[in-house]
Amino acid sequence: MELLVKNGLVVTMDGERRVLRNASIAVDGGRIVEIGREVKGKADVVIDAGRKIVLPGLINAHTHLPMTLFRGVADDVPLDRWLREEIWPVEAKLEGRHIYAGALLGCLEMIRSGTTCFNDMYFFMDEVARAVEESGIRGVLSHAMLDLGDGEKARRFLREGEELMRRHRQDGRVRIFLGPHAPYTCSEELLIKTKELSDKYKTGVHIHVAETKAEVEDSVKAHGKSPFEYLDSIGFLGPRVVAAHSVWASDQEVEIMAERGVKVAHNPVCNMKIASGVARVPDYLERGITVALGTDGPASNNSLELFDDMKICALVHKLRSMDASAVPAEKVLEFATINGAKALGMEAEIGSLEAGKRADIILLDIDRPNLVPLTNPVSHVVYAARGCDVSTVIVDGRVVMEDRQLRTLDQGQVLAFAREEARDLFTKAGREDRLFDL
Amino acid sequence: MELLVKNGLVVTMDGERRVLRNASIAVDGGRIVEIGREVKGKADVVIDAGRKIVLPGLINAHTHLPMTLFRGVADDVPLDRWLREEIWPVEAKLEGRHIYAGALLGCLEMIRSGTTCFNDMYFFMDEVARAVEESGIRGVLSHAMLDLGDGEKARRFLREGEELMRRHRQDGRVRIFLGPHAPYTCSEELLIKTKELSDKYKTGVHIHVAETKAEVEDSVKAHGKSPFEYLDSIGFLGPRVVAAHSVWASDQEVEIMAERGVKVAHNPVCNMKIASGVARVPDYLERGITVALGTDGPASNNSLELFDDMKICALVHKLRSMDASAVPAEKVLEFATINGAKALGMEAEIGSLEAGKRADIILLDIDRPNLVPLTNPVSHVVYAARGCDVSTVIVDGRVVMEDRQLRTLDQGQVLAFAREEARDLFTKAGREDRLFDL
Repeated sequence: MELLVKNGLVVTMDGERRVLRNASIAVDGGRIVEIGREVKGKADVVIDAGRKIVLPGLINAHTHLPMTLFRGVADDVPLDRWLREEIWPVEAKLEGRHIYAGALLGCLEMIRSGTTCFNDMYFFMDEVARAVEESGIRGVLSHAMLDLGDGEKARRFLREGEELMRRHRQDGRVRIFLGPHAPYTCSEELLIKTKELSDKYKTGVHIHVAETKAEVEDSVKAHGKSPFEYLDSIGFLGPRVVAAHSVWASDQEVEIMAERGVKVAHNPVCNMKIASGVARVPDYLERGITVALGTDGPASNNSLELFDDMKICALVHKLRSMDASAVPAEKVLEFATINGAKALGMEAEIGSLEAGKRADIILLDIDRPNLVPLTNPVSHVVYAARGCDVSTVIVDGRVVMEDRQLRTLDQGQVLAFAREEARDLFTKAGREDRLFDL
Repeated sequence: MELLVKNGLVVTMDGERRVLRNASIAVDGGRIVEIGREVKGKADVVIDAGRKIVLPGLINAHTHLPMTLFRGVADDVPLDRWLREEIWPVEAKLEGRHIYAGALLGCLEMIRSGTTCFNDMYFFMDEVARAVEESGIRGVLSHAMLDLGDGEKARRFLREGEELMRRHRQDGRVRIFLGPHAPYTCSEELLIKTKELSDKYKTGVHIHVAETKAEVEDSVKAHGKSPFEYLDSIGFLGPRVVAAHSVWASDQEVEIMAERGVKVAHNPVCNMKIASGVARVPDYLERGITVALGTDGPASNNSLELFDDMKICALVHKLRSMDASAVPAEKVLEFATINGAKALGMEAEIGSLEAGKRADIILLDIDRPNLVPLTNPVSHVVYAARGCDVSTVIVDGRVVMEDRQLRTLDQGQVLAFAREEARDLFTKAGREDRLFDL
């Protein structure tokens, strides 16, 4: 076999949520071929997982990766001002090289904090694909489409989205989804055509829905319906739709989401930071809706480390429901692993450690002050662990980080490149004062 | 001079909140003697702070350090069950050696995540003092007093508290506070005598107040007054009182707290985890009440890393007030530094980087994926940095960690000792099944 991860405390996240002591994982052809205590045979590469918690790689269900370059430019301001004054004027100056640099930086940050797959929506997505290919991570990429009612633009975006899909195989580490930005930035025509393309290519749709209360109010004004009702009325919703945020949904909309099989990409940190609210996650769970976990873009988080988001997710729902048993650690770890895979339609391939799945595996070092004593591996992962406790990361059977040493990227180069391109971008936007030089 | 921290990006947290580029800090006799661009003279030890953010050491305003041993034993359960079924039966078996091991582990975790001072309440505090002395950290320690109305017990606790105070000098890295547990576990006599001792010795008082809604309801039933009203009615409140939690305070109580100069130790993570609620921090700030930041014990957090708590603090108040500009990063960093010092009555000595203060200094490495590009050092510290970005920690002028290498503790030994003592404790309590052995 190619690779053997030997003798770990394996949190499988399989159907029975088994936790296996002293278990090994055999990998061949990029896939897990066997998992258990008595794995036999010789391996080309052996990773010692003694004193490690072994987990499926984390899945970030919603982000805008190249926005690493905007990290920290405008914090503690409301969404509207954030977008209009700080983000959009700089985004207008974006070029492919900026995107590539920002995406490489994001891939680096995610690998170092145990994320092996992410669901992204932005522009210049071939550049993001390039960063995914080079870094060894797995990415589901959508070209953001927003026509603001302009039919010409709608057709151009759809063409670009379809072309992006055709340029990339749909079975490797890069996958392409369609990315209509949101019901309030996309025309009905664009949304309907997106749905048709999605059916034609059997590909997922990544969209922002019901992020803020204002969005719901505007939707009611414009369509006489709240966002999920509106989307359902035009036949848009279905099991391939990943609805980022889904903060403001009425009881009736929760029913619609459940019936249509809509997946939720929940972003608690961003929703708190921009003061959007808290999604009704316990209600979604009760209705059997799949909830996955995202960071959102690093400009509104400001990190891509899912360990932060897992802890905060568990905490905020306890607060919202005033119930300490709400959304327990086990659930949150599902959000960040197997549910992320389900949201992306990839649950047969990733999201848990089981024979037959692609080998996306992370190892967490337990010899850390914050993880001693080892009482409950799952709650330790959610409440006490952090990205830098991840020692080794395997994606698609390939070791991309081992004992904190990156195998695919040169950290110094990636950081220098990102700084350089951030400077170029902010200078072009007349905002070089936003950067602190050392 | 003894020590020179050279050429850093210094976030002083001084009165003007100055951020100095390429600044150096000269240390002699454990104190900062000069800070600025043109520091002259030779130093015995030089720490290169180029490409580092230099901050005052973080101050954890409320914890129960030895509870590291309980980390993860009971998550996602309500407070009452947590205490009665999981914590108290094991605490009943605590011995000095367990405390010492748990405290050493806590000191290790705090040093590695940039905390240089903590405010602690627990039992066997001489053992905690020993861990503080050995690890090089700074600790303010209170012997927890709870008599539950038993006059004999009250006198014993007061005697023990006073003796503890007399056994330790009040001007070193170890300081002693008085620790009446809470208004609902202490008799009026114990509270009044504590106040008298506090006046006599000019020492601080560390107490839990108004943590849960149930506590307020019980207080109204027992005294016809809510907790702060009750404490004020017996003359207990004053500027030396650090009130941990202070989640449930009426408008009138906010006025009382402001008038008496009560300090708040805010613990947002624990308050969320146990579903207690969110303290009225914006109201406290508006009334000029000093708010400091704590983790609470590691059994209800489950970490001692203040970077987590800073981020979550900023987020939860934005959510609670539905205002993205509420409790901005600058405020949160105040909570974790200069306000922590004020809460402990030590603002003349620690909490900011200024000539004349003790040299409690941390260095944060900016060459990390999560801190690139460097847009806003303060918001980066709060929203994007984490404990493992701290490279070097100086307490009282002494380097206790340099480039992630500990100078005072042997990490392997501390972890092994903590595991051993956790096993001993849980075995004595008949709960060895709570520990996962590898």
